[in-house]
Amino acid sequence: MVSEELNCIKKELERNLPVTFYDLGKLIRSKVTLLLLKSLEIEINKDILTVLTGTELIHNASLMHDDIIDKNGIRRNSQTIYKKEGSTPSLLYGNIALINAINMLLTLNSTDIISIFNSTVVDMCKGELLQYQQQGKMPTLEEYLLKTELKTARLFTAPIRAISTLTQLPENVFNVIKNYGIAFQIKNDITNILTTNSDYIQGIYTAPIIYENNPDKINIGIEKTLSLIDNYKRECLNYLGNISDNKYKRELIGEIECLNRLERDTTNTEKSTLR
Amino acid sequence: MVSEELNCIKKELERNLPVTFYDLGKLIRSKVTLLLLKSLEIEINKDILTVLTGTELIHNASLMHDDIIDKNGIRRNSQTIYKKEGSTPSLLYGNIALINAINMLLTLNSTDIISIFNSTVVDMCKGELLQYQQQGKMPTLEEYLLKTELKTARLFTAPIRAISTLTQLPENVFNVIKNYGIAFQIKNDITNILTTNSDYIQGIYTAPIIYENNPDKINIGIEKTLSLIDNYKRECLNYLGNISDNKYKRELIGEIECLNRLERDTTNTEKSTLR
Repeated sequence: MVSEELNCIKKELERNLPVTFYDLGKLIRSKVTLLLLKSLEIEINKDILTVLTGTELIHNASLMHDDIIDKNGIRRNSQTIYKKEGSTPSLLYGNIALINAINMLLTLNSTDIISIFNSTVVDMCKGELLQYQQQGKMPTLEEYLLKTELKTARLFTAPIRAISTLTQLPENVFNVIKNYGIAFQIKNDITNILTTNSDYIQGIYTAPIIYENNPDKINIGIEKTLSLIDNYKRECLNYLGNISDNKYKRELIGEIECLNRLERDTTNTEKSTLR
Repeated sequence: MVSEELNCIKKELERNLPVTFYDLGKLIRSKVTLLLLKSLEIEINKDILTVLTGTELIHNASLMHDDIIDKNGIRRNSQTIYKKEGSTPSLLYGNIALINAINMLLTLNSTDIISIFNSTVVDMCKGELLQYQQQGKMPTLEEYLLKTELKTARLFTAPIRAISTLTQLPENVFNVIKNYGIAFQIKNDITNILTTNSDYIQGIYTAPIIYENNPDKINIGIEKTLSLIDNYKRECLNYLGNISDNKYKRELIGEIECLNRLERDTTNTEKSTLR
């Protein structure tokens, strides 16, 4: 129901990426932001689409760098640039995508917006650094959640923060997206355990392992993690309860409902297909 | 004679680098720019120092990324972050330094200046990509010079381009710095051959090898390269001939004269000490 806007973003994204080898995915950051804005009856103008395209460019830049860090060969069923061309192109194309994002956001003529995205990129790097420093050690749940917020949720909330400088937004919209972003990453981490288990193999211990560090009890750990996600989910749904019913709100609720619903057959799903 | 300004820049640089393990060097990009501006009797204000600090931050960001690409363990007689902490921190700290540079330049409230530096960073990445693609192949002299201009000279000229949006500058100052930047990198490439020879070992063929691809004739290749540098040097000196004599001009001429003067004992000199 926001497919027209998502198609616009995808086209601009393709034009501004220095290289693409993989499916660009469903642009989840843009999708939930668009659904939330439209459920609030906020008109989607060109500036909002620019903010969202900048967000997706930064996301793709971070994927190119993450693939080097994680030595990740496959993303969305295609070879990564890291695998196909090497870590040097993946690093440099990532840098170019990041700069292209800043250039795109510059067209909005707002230093506030550039500052929001700059601090977001720094937070994402800090989240990755935390993960690197925690590697091989069992983090506390608090440390894991802090890392998750920095690494993933910050880029979910950056567009809504930027858009709030362009147009009046109701209070608390920020929190809906933040809770969604954290829950989204926690679900990704469960999916990783159920598929490639690459995080665990690399010594990156996520919520299910933090709850139950015992291979025989992994299902208990996953159940506890689904309850954790449920808290974030409920926060999102509580907020949406205050908005009058419309088709965008219903679609957004559908996206939120998926957050703790694990696909029955996840055996063919890459961790990366969910990012 | 510009040591006061250089000290200011160094202090701000230290404050804005997420991590430093090595001596920050002589800030050659800032030094030649300051000497040129002062020889033209242009007052060095806070904005100019901000531009130069941003330049040095970008330079340091690129070093952290280059060390991963070149697997470089030593820089200015210290272990690199890449060697000491690994490629992940070197990548992420490099990203943070780049964003800190953009944040610093944002304080000048000029989208033109951000655009100049953004296109510079993209050019530097394109230069590195060219080098990566040429690895193991013998480039033409033109290809080598294009790579050198993108990879190195663009960051030398970026501050003067940025400063020209803040204050009136005479024509051609841009070309002096551009010629200096190209010659500076060519000299570095000779020094690499005379010391660690790491470029050649990695299949990166620079001017002396392009001129004479024969180990027995490397001295002839170096002589030809020194003549090549002489052309760039002469361009710089010709321009300075039009400026009335002053102590800054004399110091700048001293820096330019060094461009094709090889230190007798280069055996202890790292490639990186000259960067």
